[in-house]
Amino acid sequence: MRTTTGWQSAGGTELRRLPFERRDLRDDDIAVRVDYCGVCHSDLHALQGLTGKPTEGMVPGHEFTGTVTEVGPSVTDFAVGDRVAVGTIVDSCGKCAMCQAGQENFCLEGGVNTYGGTDRIDGTVTKGGYSREYVLRDKFAYRLPDGLDPAAAAPLLCAGITTWEAMRAAGVGPGSKVAVAGLGGLGHLAVKFAAALGAEVTVLSRTPDKLDDARRLGATDLVVTSDEAQLRQSAWRFDLVLDTIPGPHELSPLVDLLTLDGTLSVLGYPLQEPAPLIKLVYGRKKVTSSGTGGRRGTAEMLAFAAERGVVADVEVLPSGRVGEALERLARGDVRYRFVLDLADLG
Amino acid sequence: MRTTTGWQSAGGTELRRLPFERRDLRDDDIAVRVDYCGVCHSDLHALQGLTGKPTEGMVPGHEFTGTVTEVGPSVTDFAVGDRVAVGTIVDSCGKCAMCQAGQENFCLEGGVNTYGGTDRIDGTVTKGGYSREYVLRDKFAYRLPDGLDPAAAAPLLCAGITTWEAMRAAGVGPGSKVAVAGLGGLGHLAVKFAAALGAEVTVLSRTPDKLDDARRLGATDLVVTSDEAQLRQSAWRFDLVLDTIPGPHELSPLVDLLTLDGTLSVLGYPLQEPAPLIKLVYGRKKVTSSGTGGRRGTAEMLAFAAERGVVADVEVLPSGRVGEALERLARGDVRYRFVLDLADLG
Repeated sequence: MRTTTGWQSAGGTELRRLPFERRDLRDDDIAVRVDYCGVCHSDLHALQGLTGKPTEGMVPGHEFTGTVTEVGPSVTDFAVGDRVAVGTIVDSCGKCAMCQAGQENFCLEGGVNTYGGTDRIDGTVTKGGYSREYVLRDKFAYRLPDGLDPAAAAPLLCAGITTWEAMRAAGVGPGSKVAVAGLGGLGHLAVKFAAALGAEVTVLSRTPDKLDDARRLGATDLVVTSDEAQLRQSAWRFDLVLDTIPGPHELSPLVDLLTLDGTLSVLGYPLQEPAPLIKLVYGRKKVTSSGTGGRRGTAEMLAFAAERGVVADVEVLPSGRVGEALERLARGDVRYRFVLDLADLG
Repeated sequence: MRTTTGWQSAGGTELRRLPFERRDLRDDDIAVRVDYCGVCHSDLHALQGLTGKPTEGMVPGHEFTGTVTEVGPSVTDFAVGDRVAVGTIVDSCGKCAMCQAGQENFCLEGGVNTYGGTDRIDGTVTKGGYSREYVLRDKFAYRLPDGLDPAAAAPLLCAGITTWEAMRAAGVGPGSKVAVAGLGGLGHLAVKFAAALGAEVTVLSRTPDKLDDARRLGATDLVVTSDEAQLRQSAWRFDLVLDTIPGPHELSPLVDLLTLDGTLSVLGYPLQEPAPLIKLVYGRKKVTSSGTGGRRGTAEMLAFAAERGVVADVEVLPSGRVGEALERLARGDVRYRFVLDLADLG
């Protein structure tokens, strides 16, 4: 076994700097020095116990970039010194219909989550990227394309791919009318990707103060959702509404904004909201959800991001300030993603 | 005004034979002698007050076939003696985005329902096809193709088009895997249409006794949904599940049967069911709904039905036995659609 240091939950959202063990490298493993790890809203949900997993001992973090420091004997795709990125899953069965379809995130045997998951071989609980080193199967690391800043690219691996796959599944392209509800970590990347895909993008926000940011990110428009008149004016307008709001909220007002055969994709908080089925009748509207992506989609997304220069707007903090990051994230005080710099873990 | 006779609600599901008035023909109206009218589950829902409209004086019926008996001066598409079919709406604004898209059923000003609707010109409440004569705008009547039996074709105008549009929107064709839940009026036509479109069709039923019927209608398979093992075996199997169950039921078990990017289309009872959003995450599954169709889709459906010989399996009763039909429909005792023969109204 090898020892690293990370930020572990004492139960709940309080994290402590503690050493813990990583496994020795298997034949197809690589060891990665974690350089930057995004602070995802689902990290907060997990630490709050909303995902139903034990929080004590949890080391969050499932969108990180780093540098390969060691490779197992059968690894051919990576060499020491390579820049890599890792997302929300670190293994899957590889044989089921979903894995075969390149959607390892939906593995029918259960993809192994980057933290809080159960390793398929030794049964240990995985610990995430709020740590200095990660050991994983080579197939679930992605080469970080040249030109992508490693801090700003880290959030692509969860926030980015989640919105990317939802848009690709909905066929977003030139001429698509896309609305993004919730301008946070997911939302701001959704705006950038949608604009880069050629869509006409509108931000939906409770307050008008994000208009300048929305435009800078690539949106043409902002609809203030607390303004009934603006909502009415945008009824039946969008092919796709990407709902990235990270807390409980009603879906009906978002369904009203969809056009014929339009899709509401609930990405931020698909835990408890009832979908207003009767509202779907008129216009044959659809409600869907999704989470992260498979190997194929993630590789495509990274290539597209590199080609079009899409990365997150980040506020980088030394990992010792993780508590502050979580607390500010909980009240929405971030534009638009915190990224931890793990260098302070030595 | 002109007088006709129909079956009117005394408040609730009890219907009485009473005379009532139809309007004199406007320039673009036609008068239709109603020959056959299907008994739709939504007639029952409406008479039970589930649609929130006053039941007293209601004359149900929104899928009927008949014969043109008179035409207004500007009518050019129909002549006296023509066989026609009428569905769930009899007028719409004609100008909104939905009407322009050929989806008058979703008219943004509200399509005028065939019964319980409000006429756009004189403001009267429309009365339906459980009557001897109907007067409507020519644009909302369809020529009944030669070769379609007028009794068996009547249910195509609501049950048929509702399942047809849902399948067309989902892109059903050769190779599609389609499951149909609820083998009633909608369900049996869904099986016939899906099979005619080249799909591999499975019936989902609580009991195995409909297997022979399912096969005769064009299904290859029946999954008994009360059998957990059979349900598990069919998990992740279908591109489209058409849910035609006419009462309250859980959607989760149906979502489990969908494959990647699969769609659950709730057609039978989309009134109150909460959609299990969290279940949609894994596999990026979709929930949608729909109701009836527009002029374009209805004309396409009728042409396809004539070409492929798709009509409903009907039990034709003289309209005087409408009470019996509603009572038996309420307990599911029909294979698979009651159709009233209005000849007994004189």
